[in-house]
Amino acid sequence: MTTRVTLEHVAARASVSRQTVSNVINSPDIVKAATKQRVEQAIAELGYRPHAAARQLVTRRSHVLGFAVPPSGGGTRYPVDSAFLHALTEAAQREGYRIMLFTAGTDAEEISEYRHLLDGSDLDGFVLAHTHHGDPRTSWLAEHGVPFVTFGRPWGHPDVSHHWVDVDGAAGTRAAVEHLAEAGHVRIAFIGWPTGSGVGDDRRDGWARALAERGRTAGEIADWQAVTLDSVEAAAAPVRALLERVRPTALVCVSDSVAVAALRVTAQLGADVAIVGFDDAPVAEPLGLSSLRQPLAEAAARCLDLVLRPRAEPHQVLLAPALIVRASSGTARHPLATPSPTHESLRTP
Amino acid sequence: MTTRVTLEHVAARASVSRQTVSNVINSPDIVKAATKQRVEQAIAELGYRPHAAARQLVTRRSHVLGFAVPPSGGGTRYPVDSAFLHALTEAAQREGYRIMLFTAGTDAEEISEYRHLLDGSDLDGFVLAHTHHGDPRTSWLAEHGVPFVTFGRPWGHPDVSHHWVDVDGAAGTRAAVEHLAEAGHVRIAFIGWPTGSGVGDDRRDGWARALAERGRTAGEIADWQAVTLDSVEAAAAPVRALLERVRPTALVCVSDSVAVAALRVTAQLGADVAIVGFDDAPVAEPLGLSSLRQPLAEAAARCLDLVLRPRAEPHQVLLAPALIVRASSGTARHPLATPSPTHESLRTP
Repeated sequence: MTTRVTLEHVAARASVSRQTVSNVINSPDIVKAATKQRVEQAIAELGYRPHAAARQLVTRRSHVLGFAVPPSGGGTRYPVDSAFLHALTEAAQREGYRIMLFTAGTDAEEISEYRHLLDGSDLDGFVLAHTHHGDPRTSWLAEHGVPFVTFGRPWGHPDVSHHWVDVDGAAGTRAAVEHLAEAGHVRIAFIGWPTGSGVGDDRRDGWARALAERGRTAGEIADWQAVTLDSVEAAAAPVRALLERVRPTALVCVSDSVAVAALRVTAQLGADVAIVGFDDAPVAEPLGLSSLRQPLAEAAARCLDLVLRPRAEPHQVLLAPALIVRASSGTARHPLATPSPTHESLRTP
Repeated sequence: MTTRVTLEHVAARASVSRQTVSNVINSPDIVKAATKQRVEQAIAELGYRPHAAARQLVTRRSHVLGFAVPPSGGGTRYPVDSAFLHALTEAAQREGYRIMLFTAGTDAEEISEYRHLLDGSDLDGFVLAHTHHGDPRTSWLAEHGVPFVTFGRPWGHPDVSHHWVDVDGAAGTRAAVEHLAEAGHVRIAFIGWPTGSGVGDDRRDGWARALAERGRTAGEIADWQAVTLDSVEAAAAPVRALLERVRPTALVCVSDSVAVAALRVTAQLGADVAIVGFDDAPVAEPLGLSSLRQPLAEAAARCLDLVLRPRAEPHQVLLAPALIVRASSGTARHPLATPSPTHESLRTP
């Protein structure tokens, strides 16, 4: 390896003092623009890198952000994690930051890991996913003055003010209803999760409001829906009961797991029901399942921006998902008996 | 927050000098066992944590390992990444280590990131995935004396000696053939990737050897196979051509993407062909696709063990995948027309 380039080399090259180089690195705001440019050029030309650990002691910034992943085995519970995490890593790297992973099975464990990580001054902040009602993590971080942003709204706490980015689930199910209504469907049912999950309630609301705007009565809207746990196995019976009771021609599903169950049940019954899922999970494309795709790369980039750049006021960003139309709602033929189209048509709500 | 516990507090509690506490933290081997135990107890009781950055300057260990994720958008290319990464994060956390993510689209970019990361002394080592023929990353790390382990063999370099953990693809396809032969199948074909990918060649070899052991001729083995690119769309035509040419009653597929194409083609043709995929991707369970599941949690734990604990000799660990039998090879009925069994039977080769 070559001789390490030092602060002194940079100072000599830029014809400034050591202190000025240090200021450019640690307090760039107090350095004149022309001087800063000259020092930055010298840093670039010499390939100088302040020793990360020493720099950390001076600036108290590690350029590392924490992100909790669920315990292994729970991977399928959060099908969007991987794409979001890859996009977050990319966005961070563009800004000179890294993502440090840790894992926690519960909110209490996650807060305990925050303590561990912050105690060592290892992290500059956190990106949180999977916010939920009564989430204790955000209040802990706020109380301890730790920069953070959540991918997910402060469900049930409309008065809570912190940075967040979320996907507009209601806009997604509304887009699904509009797509199905354009194809002539009127009896458009919904199968969701039990009331109380912010994400699930939001997705149901979009469907319900879109039906109300199309003249459906409150009674019809109350009637044309059912709930289920979020797995292919658990959803089969509730889907079948809903289909037999309501006889819909189209079904909007709260998730792709539920939509896969709906594809199976309709295939068994020989029922011609258009189906739209949510999340565009890896299973959707091979099954020809229409679904709503979350803009995860944009969500990750916006999260990073909010946690890195201090703002006077909390910022909230709501992004619309894109409806991906495939055979399950695009043609009269049943997707399980036919290949999906080789290209996707992409529509934003 | 409470007053920070210092080295002095620990020394007083354990009735030892500051230097002894420092030795227990940084050079535990030179401290007598009884003294070490007393100091460790005091550390635990007081909740003492040496400031991570200061400790890093002293010990030059950050307790952080690097792991490269593919750029976003390439997420589906490596369906096993997410589960492996979650398991690696968990295993690391149990040992007081964290996983730091970075991203790189090519080997050259990945090596460039190694430089960046090591230049800042941020990392103690790397865990690499997706080894391949002529992989320049491992030789770069070895030349620079950086601890690392690969999840994947040094394909094409049997003389290369470094720590690695891999899944025995040949044992997996052999198990698939044995499972199909037990069900009475003789004409068991294989559809793989073009020759030259270590993983793909290994999976084909297991199938070929199992057929040879069952008395198939070299000519039959050469004839009963085809290659395809790894996507559902690309595989449809090669699968159809293989089925029409060889008329197999069973088909072992190099991946679940190829197996999904095979499910579609056989459904279209109305052909009764048993199908086994590889990787147990998220799509396999909903489709009732039999597949080979890599033991990713164990692989992650073994990788961590190899990179953290110095050994005189390079260690190699080869793990067997588990055959998950579902409807695609478990019954005569076609899985696309029937629900998969609600429970899985798990068999190890």
